[in-house]
Amino acid sequence: MSFQRTRPVAYIPCTIEPPSEVWRQRARAHLDTLTKPLGSLGRLEDIAAQIVSIRRERFTEKVNKGAYVFAADHGITAEGVSAYPREVTHQMVLNFLAQGAAINVLARLHDVELRVVDVGVDADFHNLSSLLHHKVSKGTQNMLHEAAMTDEQLAQALAVGAAIADDASAAGQTMIAIGEMGIGNTTSASAITCALIGATATQATGHGTGMGVEAHARKVSIVQAIVSKHFTASSANSSALEILRCVGGLEIAAMVGMILTAANHQLVIVADGFISTAAAALAVAIAPTVQGYLIAGHQSEEPGHKLLLDHLNLVPVLMLNMRLGEGTGAVLAMPILESAIALYTQMATFTSAGVSGASR
Amino acid sequence: MSFQRTRPVAYIPCTIEPPSEVWRQRARAHLDTLTKPLGSLGRLEDIAAQIVSIRRERFTEKVNKGAYVFAADHGITAEGVSAYPREVTHQMVLNFLAQGAAINVLARLHDVELRVVDVGVDADFHNLSSLLHHKVSKGTQNMLHEAAMTDEQLAQALAVGAAIADDASAAGQTMIAIGEMGIGNTTSASAITCALIGATATQATGHGTGMGVEAHARKVSIVQAIVSKHFTASSANSSALEILRCVGGLEIAAMVGMILTAANHQLVIVADGFISTAAAALAVAIAPTVQGYLIAGHQSEEPGHKLLLDHLNLVPVLMLNMRLGEGTGAVLAMPILESAIALYTQMATFTSAGVSGASR
Repeated sequence: MSFQRTRPVAYIPCTIEPPSEVWRQRARAHLDTLTKPLGSLGRLEDIAAQIVSIRRERFTEKVNKGAYVFAADHGITAEGVSAYPREVTHQMVLNFLAQGAAINVLARLHDVELRVVDVGVDADFHNLSSLLHHKVSKGTQNMLHEAAMTDEQLAQALAVGAAIADDASAAGQTMIAIGEMGIGNTTSASAITCALIGATATQATGHGTGMGVEAHARKVSIVQAIVSKHFTASSANSSALEILRCVGGLEIAAMVGMILTAANHQLVIVADGFISTAAAALAVAIAPTVQGYLIAGHQSEEPGHKLLLDHLNLVPVLMLNMRLGEGTGAVLAMPILESAIALYTQMATFTSAGVSGASR
Repeated sequence: MSFQRTRPVAYIPCTIEPPSEVWRQRARAHLDTLTKPLGSLGRLEDIAAQIVSIRRERFTEKVNKGAYVFAADHGITAEGVSAYPREVTHQMVLNFLAQGAAINVLARLHDVELRVVDVGVDADFHNLSSLLHHKVSKGTQNMLHEAAMTDEQLAQALAVGAAIADDASAAGQTMIAIGEMGIGNTTSASAITCALIGATATQATGHGTGMGVEAHARKVSIVQAIVSKHFTASSANSSALEILRCVGGLEIAAMVGMILTAANHQLVIVADGFISTAAAALAVAIAPTVQGYLIAGHQSEEPGHKLLLDHLNLVPVLMLNMRLGEGTGAVLAMPILESAIALYTQMATFTSAGVSGASR
């Protein structure tokens, strides 16, 4: 994969065409001709209509699924915000490459091409061939004391995601899952939720990947301190890019870049959990029409996730109390999404099947 | 398929061994060694543990999925309880055989072997080879005026389901979806819900496959009249088999027979919507240990379905506002169930992958 590392932030596609309302209406009309009571496929009908509105004349193409796990470390781990040591980001990337993680199992089972991207892991992967090497730096700065990223780091990380979206589209992928791995990144997602939609630290801070009551209370106060440091009352309208730079992560910035560019390529974008949806919310803040390209794969156990889903007006496909990340909730939803489009394209109509309609 | 049409009701396996608690505990312990935060796969972990407890030492076998659509007509359609004419049962069976219905699309996409069973459709299918021919009669009697079935019809329909479960197990299937097609059968499911768990007709009666306000009010009063006719206050403790005989359907009886025998064969049984779950509730009333073999594929829009799921203490895998039947909600849940067992059998452990554990 080759791309301009120095692609400026200004390159971000901010004038993204929304999904096609004409195609959505056409899809609704077609759904009502299929051999089933009107509306009886419930949310599958909404999903089919959305996918048709995104893909337009290409909706009949075979669903070609990709999943992307963006990995990076976080300076905030110095404050003890995670139940797991920072090294786990590195170790889990190796686990992904060895096919042993949850996302590997799900991607394999559901025929999803999985790529793992190093945007900022604090370790040397040398030339491990199965990894996409796009390290911007060995993790962010500690956002309790300074901005997580410089302008240049932010621009580089956004460009990583944009280039990967270009490649996904060029490779013929039609539906992508946006996942991540980064010890400490729920703290970023909580801070983003506070800064972007005005949630309190208490509302936006969960138990991450498993911490006790005391550790959670400490995490809430750290999130509060981070938000207070970067966003004073007078800067209440910080731009999404400034929020991302100050309290985001390199993997979150790459996800934002990928989401923006994937929408521009008219791909179906499946968000995963809290961190992935935080990236989606930032992308929508930058370019509101991105909303129509998003599907929420699931709703996780993180309380901030529900706040972001509500803010984005997204109804999750699955609610299975998961809180793993890696893109697992997004990939798990893909068979449902694929079902919706298969029903749309393959079911018989009342006329073709000679089935009588409803009388009332 | 050959079996004794005259197999007596007494043949029903009423002493079914529950799923193995030993295997469930073993599964829980194994789940905690996998490279993910404790419990972070949420309901997938419960599902994996349940499947292991059902399949025991055979949990490692490849998941081999079947779906069964039991079709029959209902005498109650004479009362105008459905938005669709009675002929649609016949027409939809032909649509299933022509691969045009929703269940065909989903079964094909998710690698599920689909069989359609005529237990009581009011039409002659002659020797259509792709249909399982087990017609007991051309529909039930009108339960507003008399019992839906005779003792002999009930026994025959139960035996149809039992024999199909035997065959599914012999063919190596490990997970089965229980579906149906029968214009008028939500009226049966509503009456069963009233008689079995004491719900009122208003609580247990929904809009079926699509009817207006007036038609719905009429349906509620018909359900009330049916329940009053067959179950006087003094017969409040009617047996499940008597409820099934008086207000059930031939396809519902066959589903009960299949569920009981499939549990005896230690298959994973995936219930679909309101009618399928009514059959499951009757099976559990007959043999309570069947409960542990059941998974609720989804929760439909029918209000009585939620009552039955709560009664059975089942949490649905999907909630997608579907109300189609045919086994669609059960088959749609199968990729999720298969994901749960794949994660269980294929993920690396912390030790094998060299990943650090949590500190607290």
